[in-house]
Amino acid sequence: MPVRLNSNDKDFETHFVELLGLKREVSTDVDNAVRAIIDDVRARGDAALVDLSLKFDRLDLRKTGIAVTAAEVEAAYAACSKETLDALMFARDRIADHHKRQLPSDDRYTDAAGVELGHRWTAVESVGLYVPGGLASYPSSVLMNAVPAQVAGVPRIVMVVPSPSGELNPLVLAAAKIAGVSEIYRVGGAQAVAALAYGTDTIRPVVKIVGPGNAWVAAAKRQVFGTVGIDSIAGPSEVLVIADKNNDPEWIASDLLAQAEHDTAAQSILMTDDEAFAEAVEQAVRRQLGTLPRGNIAGESWNTFGATIILGSLGEAVPLADRIAAEHLEIATADAEDLAMRIRNAGAIFIGSVTPEVIGDYVSGSNHVLPTARSARFSSGLGVLDFMKRTSILKLDRAALEKIGPAAMTLARAEGLEGHRRSVEIRLEEAG
Amino acid sequence: MPVRLNSNDKDFETHFVELLGLKREVSTDVDNAVRAIIDDVRARGDAALVDLSLKFDRLDLRKTGIAVTAAEVEAAYAACSKETLDALMFARDRIADHHKRQLPSDDRYTDAAGVELGHRWTAVESVGLYVPGGLASYPSSVLMNAVPAQVAGVPRIVMVVPSPSGELNPLVLAAAKIAGVSEIYRVGGAQAVAALAYGTDTIRPVVKIVGPGNAWVAAAKRQVFGTVGIDSIAGPSEVLVIADKNNDPEWIASDLLAQAEHDTAAQSILMTDDEAFAEAVEQAVRRQLGTLPRGNIAGESWNTFGATIILGSLGEAVPLADRIAAEHLEIATADAEDLAMRIRNAGAIFIGSVTPEVIGDYVSGSNHVLPTARSARFSSGLGVLDFMKRTSILKLDRAALEKIGPAAMTLARAEGLEGHRRSVEIRLEEAG
Repeated sequence: MPVRLNSNDKDFETHFVELLGLKREVSTDVDNAVRAIIDDVRARGDAALVDLSLKFDRLDLRKTGIAVTAAEVEAAYAACSKETLDALMFARDRIADHHKRQLPSDDRYTDAAGVELGHRWTAVESVGLYVPGGLASYPSSVLMNAVPAQVAGVPRIVMVVPSPSGELNPLVLAAAKIAGVSEIYRVGGAQAVAALAYGTDTIRPVVKIVGPGNAWVAAAKRQVFGTVGIDSIAGPSEVLVIADKNNDPEWIASDLLAQAEHDTAAQSILMTDDEAFAEAVEQAVRRQLGTLPRGNIAGESWNTFGATIILGSLGEAVPLADRIAAEHLEIATADAEDLAMRIRNAGAIFIGSVTPEVIGDYVSGSNHVLPTARSARFSSGLGVLDFMKRTSILKLDRAALEKIGPAAMTLARAEGLEGHRRSVEIRLEEAG
Repeated sequence: MPVRLNSNDKDFETHFVELLGLKREVSTDVDNAVRAIIDDVRARGDAALVDLSLKFDRLDLRKTGIAVTAAEVEAAYAACSKETLDALMFARDRIADHHKRQLPSDDRYTDAAGVELGHRWTAVESVGLYVPGGLASYPSSVLMNAVPAQVAGVPRIVMVVPSPSGELNPLVLAAAKIAGVSEIYRVGGAQAVAALAYGTDTIRPVVKIVGPGNAWVAAAKRQVFGTVGIDSIAGPSEVLVIADKNNDPEWIASDLLAQAEHDTAAQSILMTDDEAFAEAVEQAVRRQLGTLPRGNIAGESWNTFGATIILGSLGEAVPLADRIAAEHLEIATADAEDLAMRIRNAGAIFIGSVTPEVIGDYVSGSNHVLPTARSARFSSGLGVLDFMKRTSILKLDRAALEKIGPAAMTLARAEGLEGHRRSVEIRLEEAG
């Protein structure tokens, strides 16, 4: 059974802190094994990929090749239904349209002291997109990672995807084609991350690696960080729904379950100011669970990590939601817009009762890669800026150096960096 | 002696790759020791800080208190020369002015399908700024980290700084006052990072930790990442100077040495199309080294990691500079502006012979916290966005859901997520 908290209870704060502290992920220590795999790929390149794929994926890359061929991609595309392809292209176009608005502007200006300053944004040269194999192999995630990279102007977008026993999800290959992925390799796990970071004869290294993966992939990304850039490490998904009694309990229940069906470690929380409504939603959840194909997963998630929180008033939701800092925050109340603007910490906010979180997973155009596990307190969803970097520009003339140089010399001396002082002084002397 | 490469040599590529691969940092494995310190601080809070400060800093916090008092800050401020305080305030104002231009805009719009989308930027609630003690305790770094946080609107800016044997650099305290730091604690090392991440009775936890530190601090930041946000882990500083023969070799030499005096692991590289000029610069470096207070450090850096690269033409600099991806790139050539625009990978570019890199360290207004160790290929200097996060906003009405909902249902089914499909369907059914 999910926990039920009431903000009027004396021990509410204690229980709320317990809820915040719930550990939903079992941390597997695979660091040493991953280090060995990375070393092996660095030392032996493609030969290591062959051996490791035999071992972990029961796949002989010497027979299939490491690269997925254009013909294979075309065949996979042809195998998909028109309805699904149309939906993928519809999503791709909406994601592209939305993300184009995130393209940053360069800046260049001369300030009052005559100092020319500015910055220039450029795309990273190449990106490696990790796509999990098996159940969690989602074409929508391919779009959500690759399309912003394309919008940013990344010229080379590489995808790696494990092919257990030779299987590849045709939808994932079709999504890659639709998203403009330029190379695909049938390798996964830590070995794929190592190949992307350090390169092999077949796979040229990339500059940044993004995308979700299991504990091995996450550990490998952490270990190669520095050699390449990485995105944030995603944890299990979560939703916080704030709803008043004027909602259909069945709608709200379906949203809690959509989140819960992802993973037994997912978390769905309902906040409401009406206890009878909370009970109605809980009942609806139990009823819907019985008919859900992934009911076992959703049920385990809901019973282990689910929660309903009864508030004295909806205004109490603001500080609590900020502490939860949910990946997904759905607000279905009369003053939803006002509440949304008062809450600072959330990956994405879904306003109103006809904005189910699921819309953001697929076709809203907004990115579904969002900060999990309370990291919305300090980080943002994936976007175009994650595939770009900013270079500062400085340009002085002699007059500007004369104006601001002396203060630099003072600070250099104060910090005991005489060489710093001199590199300004030598120019001012000769100017004088 | 620094290495000398010539792009005409047959084995240039080999030597250039060697130069790129030079390991300038000795990685100390302190992970287990750091883990024990963090656990101790989590378990015992202030008492652990007292014990660890006795051990590592020879300081009894029971006598001094953990917090640096307002009176101590005022006394430190009063002990600084007016010239230095004026220079710090001059720098602070210029940093603030420049960083205000980085403040991002919110976005909100309704697209053709009637879907309301957008995002809202908010400042993180609190930031912890780590400031090293001893030699590397630079007031300019306090400004460069704290001022952008202030510009972003972070309401609570906390500083931690170790106080070995009770010593605190008055300039660092003065800079903290000038930069608007709201709390200061005299703790350092992994224990300070742990206190910032998890809190103690005296130190309330923060949401994000920034600032440079030694191997212990870096390891602690990595370990608490996730619980809090962190900035990137900075490596030793570096400069690449591209200069033609129309420069004064003494000026260029002074820039190479300003970088080299930071640290024996710093790196200074000169690229030029004129061998005689390269030799003149090398001679000037040797001459200036003899008179530099930190000549031993600068000399070791220059001899171990320094390099001059002779090019057939300056155009060859573009791809090479992109591979080096220097933290600081100085361009002193006739076509400096043009070269600057063609190079994509650099933390900051200093254009023209009267724009010494040192200007960027102190008073240009631009941030001096920049990506090191080739990470400018995928990351940017510190800025206002590092202290903010973006929340996506979505809002549909019934008509918009009818337009885009069916494609979401198709994709949910294709991914085997029936619960996702139903959370859209249930709303469309009742709408129908």
